[in-house]
Amino acid sequence: MTGRLYGIGLGPGDPELLTIKALRLIQAAPVVSYFAKAGRRGNARGIVDPWLTGAAIEVPLHYPMTTEHAFDSPVYVSVLAEFYEKAVASLSTHLDAGRDVALLAEGDPLFYGSFMHLYVRLRARYPVTLVPGVTGMAGCWSVAGEPMTWGDDTLSVLPGTLPSAALVEKLRATDAAVIMKLGRNFAKVREAVEAAGLLDRAIYVERGTMADERVMKLAEKTDGQAPYFSLILIPGQGRRP
Amino acid sequence: MTGRLYGIGLGPGDPELLTIKALRLIQAAPVVSYFAKAGRRGNARGIVDPWLTGAAIEVPLHYPMTTEHAFDSPVYVSVLAEFYEKAVASLSTHLDAGRDVALLAEGDPLFYGSFMHLYVRLRARYPVTLVPGVTGMAGCWSVAGEPMTWGDDTLSVLPGTLPSAALVEKLRATDAAVIMKLGRNFAKVREAVEAAGLLDRAIYVERGTMADERVMKLAEKTDGQAPYFSLILIPGQGRRP
Repeated sequence: MTGRLYGIGLGPGDPELLTIKALRLIQAAPVVSYFAKAGRRGNARGIVDPWLTGAAIEVPLHYPMTTEHAFDSPVYVSVLAEFYEKAVASLSTHLDAGRDVALLAEGDPLFYGSFMHLYVRLRARYPVTLVPGVTGMAGCWSVAGEPMTWGDDTLSVLPGTLPSAALVEKLRATDAAVIMKLGRNFAKVREAVEAAGLLDRAIYVERGTMADERVMKLAEKTDGQAPYFSLILIPGQGRRP
Repeated sequence: MTGRLYGIGLGPGDPELLTIKALRLIQAAPVVSYFAKAGRRGNARGIVDPWLTGAAIEVPLHYPMTTEHAFDSPVYVSVLAEFYEKAVASLSTHLDAGRDVALLAEGDPLFYGSFMHLYVRLRARYPVTLVPGVTGMAGCWSVAGEPMTWGDDTLSVLPGTLPSAALVEKLRATDAAVIMKLGRNFAKVREAVEAAGLLDRAIYVERGTMADERVMKLAEKTDGQAPYFSLILIPGQGRRP
C-alpha cells in the first residue's frame, strides 16, 4: 500500500482562510511538503504555521535560483524540469513507504502555481485527493470590497506578461477582469488599462488578506513597481435590479 | 451601536469547504440569514446545517416566484428590486438593534450571486466584514481533477446566456474557460463549444463537491439538459516545463 497525495489549497494568505477540510488533512498528514524560494521558509509554510502541530515530517521544496534566466529560455525550462523531477523523487520516497503526503498550494491547487507540475507527474502512480482553496484573486477582491461579477458579466483573468496590444484588446472585450503577474510588467499593464479606458474603475491590491495588505485605486499608484503578490481588479458593472 | 454585517462565502457545497473564518463567524453570529427558493430550505442553509448550533435567529430570504417572467423583463426586475428592498429592511431591523448578521453566500460573496445586491444597499449604513469563499467553479475543477490554468494562460468565465456567436468568438480567444448558467442554454452552449473546436477538451460537472456530484466529458453528455448547479470546464494547456 502506497500513501495518498493530498493537494491542498491554502487560500490567499490569511491562515483563517484555510478550509476546514484543508486543516483536518494537514493536521492528519505524516508528511507536509511545500514550495519555497531558496534560503526562505516560504509563504505557504508561513500560512500554515499556526496550524502545524510539529508531528509531521516537513519536506520543503526549494526552487532553484533562476532569476538570471528568462522564463521562456531553454536553460530556465530545463532547470525547472530537473527541479520538478527531484521533488517528485523526494515525495515518492514517502508515498512508496506508505506515508500520506500533504502538498500545500497557495490559493487553489489547480489555478496556476507549482503544485500542478508535481500533480501531473504523480497522479498516475498514487491515489490523489484535491482540496480546492480560496484563490488569491478572491482574497484580493474581498479586501477591496467590490463586487466583481454581476448577472451575465464575463470575467477575464489575464497575465500581465501579455503584449500591450493583446491586453488592451482583451480588456475591451470583457465586462470584468483580473490582471495577475504584475511585477516588472506593472508599468506596461497600467498603460494598457488606461488605453482601454478603464483606469477610473481599476483597483490595485497588494498581498490581499495578509498582514501588510494594501489597496488603492490604480490611478493613484504611479510608482511603476509591484511585488509578486499583487494584482489589478476591474469590477464588472452588469445587470442589477 | 449598530450591528455588523458579515458577508460569508460558503464554498461550493461540501460543508467542510467552509473556511475556518467562515465557521467561526457563523457560529458567533446572533443572526444568520440566507437566500432560498420559496417553499424550500435552500442550498446555503443545507451547507451550514452541520455547523449551526441552534443559538442564532435564522432569517431566510425567500425569492419571489419569478419563473413566469424573462430575466430581462421589466416585471422581473421590479419584482426582484422589491424583494431586495424587503430583505434589506428585514436585516436592518436586526442591525439597528445592535445584532450582528451573518449573511451567507454560496461560493464567494462577490462573485455572482444574490449577496451583492444586499451588500451594495447596506454597506453605506453598517460596518461590513467580507469573508471570501471557495468558488463553485474551483469546487468543480477539483472534482474533475484537471489543472485549469498554467503559466501565462488566460481564463475566461462566460455565462451560457451569451449569444452563440459571441460564445464561439470568446472561446476561440482564450486559453482556458468556464461556462456557467447552463440550464436551458445547455444545447446552445454545447454547440458553441463544438464550433470552437473544443469539444474534446471540455468537461461537464454537475453539483461539484456535493453528495450527488457528476463529472463527464462534455462529448459524452448528449441529453441536452443541465441543472442550475452545473458548468463546463475547458482546461488550459499552457507552458509547463
